[in-house]
Amino acid sequence: MVANDRVLMSHGSGGTMMRRIIDEVFLKAFGDCPEARGDDAAICEIAAPSGNSSARIALSTDTFVVTPRFFPGGDIGHLAVCGTVNDVATSGAQVRFLSCGFVLEEGLPISDLERICASMAEAAREAGVSIVTGDTKVVDQGSCDGLFINTTGVGIVPEGIELSGASCKPGDKILISGTIGDHGIAIMSTREGLSFSTTIESDAAPLNHLIANVLEAAPGVRCFRDPTRGGLASTLNELASQSGVSMVVHESAVPVSSQVRGCCEMLGYDIYQVANEGKMVCIVAPEDAQAALEAMRASKYGENAAIIGEVVETSDNGHPLVYVSTDFGSRRIMDMLVGEQLPRIC
Amino acid sequence: MVANDRVLMSHGSGGTMMRRIIDEVFLKAFGDCPEARGDDAAICEIAAPSGNSSARIALSTDTFVVTPRFFPGGDIGHLAVCGTVNDVATSGAQVRFLSCGFVLEEGLPISDLERICASMAEAAREAGVSIVTGDTKVVDQGSCDGLFINTTGVGIVPEGIELSGASCKPGDKILISGTIGDHGIAIMSTREGLSFSTTIESDAAPLNHLIANVLEAAPGVRCFRDPTRGGLASTLNELASQSGVSMVVHESAVPVSSQVRGCCEMLGYDIYQVANEGKMVCIVAPEDAQAALEAMRASKYGENAAIIGEVVETSDNGHPLVYVSTDFGSRRIMDMLVGEQLPRIC
Repeated sequence: MVANDRVLMSHGSGGTMMRRIIDEVFLKAFGDCPEARGDDAAICEIAAPSGNSSARIALSTDTFVVTPRFFPGGDIGHLAVCGTVNDVATSGAQVRFLSCGFVLEEGLPISDLERICASMAEAAREAGVSIVTGDTKVVDQGSCDGLFINTTGVGIVPEGIELSGASCKPGDKILISGTIGDHGIAIMSTREGLSFSTTIESDAAPLNHLIANVLEAAPGVRCFRDPTRGGLASTLNELASQSGVSMVVHESAVPVSSQVRGCCEMLGYDIYQVANEGKMVCIVAPEDAQAALEAMRASKYGENAAIIGEVVETSDNGHPLVYVSTDFGSRRIMDMLVGEQLPRIC
Repeated sequence: MVANDRVLMSHGSGGTMMRRIIDEVFLKAFGDCPEARGDDAAICEIAAPSGNSSARIALSTDTFVVTPRFFPGGDIGHLAVCGTVNDVATSGAQVRFLSCGFVLEEGLPISDLERICASMAEAAREAGVSIVTGDTKVVDQGSCDGLFINTTGVGIVPEGIELSGASCKPGDKILISGTIGDHGIAIMSTREGLSFSTTIESDAAPLNHLIANVLEAAPGVRCFRDPTRGGLASTLNELASQSGVSMVVHESAVPVSSQVRGCCEMLGYDIYQVANEGKMVCIVAPEDAQAALEAMRASKYGENAAIIGEVVETSDNGHPLVYVSTDFGSRRIMDMLVGEQLPRIC
């Protein structure tokens, strides 16, 4: 039984409270299955009808409830395609098919829906995926906030590809494909009507081609993970916990735009806990780290990629931890998000 | 441009207005693709990595927004599993994997969520499918009505199975797996607080095993279709239009429980337009109709199956129509749902 008897906003935060509702409600009911391994996509065996070979598909789902539905750098439709494409792609799969399920509020302007669908189509084209099936529900005014979009993605996992958040080993390098925090701060500043000298834009983007390039250049990749809700901090803590390792992140190596940094300092946000939608964390064997970095930097959306830290042994008590080390030699713990920092970010 | 500039409840009805928003907004943006053929599930080719064989998967998605969330005979969770299992199964696929995406309203009792997840698990067990991946979003109070659940299903299409709503031919028989209207009337009467001498229960049920039994017994099956929103009338009109044929339904052959019939007469509902969630329409070549009927009747949930009509040539103008013929020899048109009869039925 989860500690609270009602659903709280923090149950959807991507942090520890979400982990609890997943473990104590969803996994308790649905059971653990071999396909779900705590990664962003489930891997399912599909026996070919001839019977002597089988294919594996990667399956991932996400419902998008972001508010506002249009924001600098994107909209809910663009996000709905990119988010699921990225989740499927983290498995190393070639992302191929998307379904989409709309919940529309009575009274939503049709022109908004048309604009959002055009964004979805554009993002799907860029990612090279087909939207093959869909569903539309309409609810009465007041029963939904404008529209929610579920996308579920299917990818084909190439033979020999076995990525998992449970494969990180001491010595591995931690890469990030670009600056962090842009999406969360873009949404928050639009919502709160904050204005800066230049607009902070969401980074939402399909990263499946970047991932394919990295995988080709660096066979020693252990895993990719999309640092969305809960930010880099939650992603690294999840990976550390899945693999039973600790991690050290070098603060000065983490790419952050000066505007996002300024905004976080001003408003008291922990930049490591702010959501990203067009960034990829990659854990890679040390000998392949440079090749992975170069492949990222040569890819669209990867020009600011950096090696930001490394996987280390857990300390004596065996508890997986993520540390931030500063240039002054100090070290602090990078904690997973506990409460809810910015609701309805995706 | 759709005639209205705002989303109306009828855009989600399963009838002609929904057809318009699909054609004029969604298909216009996403384009037509070979995988989507106007059937309940898309059929996607998955090349096996060895390269010399390929498998086909069936993919279907549905978001459930039914109100109330608990009703006689089921709840939103049971419905969310059965609905998608049935949509995938209509393609003849072996349904294997489900994803689920939850949108939860802040304040939803955790005990409701636990009860709903237990129903989902039970329905998945009965259908023999695994819930392999999921997503949870929480929105602030007032931004969603309790909870919405998206399920997306993946099935494996056996070699040689090619079912399509476009394959109906004059002479084919029309079968229904049991009484119609139960789900819609159960929801409506719960919502409106109507009470009858005995409770009308939703018919929601997983029909994938029934479909497999029929397919084994009757290779001449042209297609299955799930007569949910818009009821039997919308389903048959869709099939007639996809195949360019007309259909005749014999009124006295259609199984309807006396309670549902009475309720429809009293309240002025057209029974043919009321939603079902545990019934299957099957179009089958005449020589296999009896075998299909027997297989249905021998299956769980199929004891009241009946042959209710046949496919005929379109009349001189070539326009596909569905007729109802009565025992007195009269004939009237069974029209597709136009407005919105019972919103949020699934």
